Amino acid sequence: MADSEFPSYPKLPRNTINRYKPRGKYDFDTIHSIVNTCPVLHVSFPTPDPSDPFPAMIPMLGFMASFSNPQVSITEPLDLYLHGYISSRLMRLSGTSPSEEEEGLPLTIAATHLDGLVLALTPNHHSYNYRSVILHGFATPVVDADEKIWAMEKITNGVVDDRWTNTRIPPTKTEMSSTQIIKVRVVDASAKVRAGWPSDDRADMKNDELRAKTWVGVVPTWIACGAPVPSPDNKLSKVPAYLADFVSVKNKVGEQNAQLAITGSK
Amino acid sequence: MADSEFPSYPKLPRNTINRYKPRGKYDFDTIHSIVNTCPVLHVSFPTPDPSDPFPAMIPMLGFMASFSNPQVSITEPLDLYLHGYISSRLMRLSGTSPSEEEEGLPLTIAATHLDGLVLALTPNHHSYNYRSVILHGFATPVVDADEKIWAMEKITNGVVDDRWTNTRIPPTKTEMSSTQIIKVRVVDASAKVRAGWPSDDRADMKNDELRAKTWVGVVPTWIACGAPVPSPDNKLSKVPAYLADFVSVKNKVGEQNAQLAITGSK
Repeated sequence: MADSEFPSYPKLPRNTINRYKPRGKYDFDTIHSIVNTCPVLHVSFPTPDPSDPFPAMIPMLGFMASFSNPQVSITEPLDLYLHGYISSRLMRLSGTSPSEEEEGLPLTIAATHLDGLVLALTPNHHSYNYRSVILHGFATPVVDADEKIWAMEKITNGVVDDRWTNTRIPPTKTEMSSTQIIKVRVVDASAKVRAGWPSDDRADMKNDELRAKTWVGVVPTWIACGAPVPSPDNKLSKVPAYLADFVSVKNKVGEQNAQLAITGSK
Repeated sequence: MADSEFPSYPKLPRNTINRYKPRGKYDFDTIHSIVNTCPVLHVSFPTPDPSDPFPAMIPMLGFMASFSNPQVSITEPLDLYLHGYISSRLMRLSGTSPSEEEEGLPLTIAATHLDGLVLALTPNHHSYNYRSVILHGFATPVVDADEKIWAMEKITNGVVDDRWTNTRIPPTKTEMSSTQIIKVRVVDASAKVRAGWPSDDRADMKNDELRAKTWVGVVPTWIACGAPVPSPDNKLSKVPAYLADFVSVKNKVGEQNAQLAITGSK
């Protein structure tokens, strides 16, 4: 921990933000919040075939928490749990070489939120408001049944709050064995956050003709949830309260975050 | 091309979808459409440091088009243009080794759209409706000024339709030299598309008590654009028509796609 007041990931050459330095963040709070509200993580890892120059990449679901210390807040050290499949390349790779058995499979994981389209006087100063995280860590399959079911609950409730207890649980033996959860021991991580208005060059700002015809500002963006659409198999006459609340809070918070990003507040 | 009627990327071991095979798509149309409507691409590449086991990953903007044949539709072979920076690791790597000078830097690129949260009777059958693409290709910096400015226009208009001509163009010499565009010659690619309702196991479907209390269906999701928020520096009294139209079409198409994904239509 670099700073006891604001616990952070270590700054290594690998994860230090060099371009737009002030956008770089290393504290647990920022990084864990971004990951735990991101519906899709992009997971990259080296392929086992040395003749294949391309890293593998898979979109996955995940959630950060601490099994050994489940009550800790997101400002404390956490592990990343990913939901994957035994038959996937990732699962087949885990623990196949002696070094991987010791440490696990090296994964790079990205979580990105798009908060707005930043429209400046020139294409050059166009940007996004965004919050993105890159994590590096070593992955191993979770074998302990208690830890596995705990992580499955976290990941399910990470998609829709309270969904776990509103479904048929616990999972059957077959479901438990066909579901793979992997635990990532995070080595380092960084976030990059862009917020605020567009900023333009002085020469363009002095160009009254340009400014008179060029709209500048931000189009806020967030992930919208529509009204839940019942399946033909659904037997409930109404959307349950926990789900209606989830949709309404998600939309409200999404729009608020996008608006707050413009004024630069957190 | 595997099929002259539906032009496609080759199916190699690297890009063949093995899990949920029917979700795999290889045609240009599907793949290029997903990439060109995705606001953030995740780009992964091997790090130059052999002692670093983690692939590098960066969120970037990109657009697929053909400079040599600019009028072709998305059902034809296209290149991927990425917007990057000279000082970034990616730029520093490009063309640094003899093999990279020949072919370019190997990149793996992901484009993912989240179309809905699929809520089943059991956590095990929960899923997302999604459209995701993984591309593999070799990247080289674009040095030709005409190709570079053409790609900058494509990428800018990929964020907001018609934005390019509604800003101060052309870019200055300084802007041209500080902006890096890289061209990816795509070697192979695949898409994976999940659409439709949740599907549950027979035993759960026969459990009337479970079905009476468990809501099943889909929460449609898409990227919402809020009303454009003018910067304090903005001089226009109204949001211009091209921008108002863009926001309104984007929201409409986003919601429509999420709804169409549920019924399984394209």
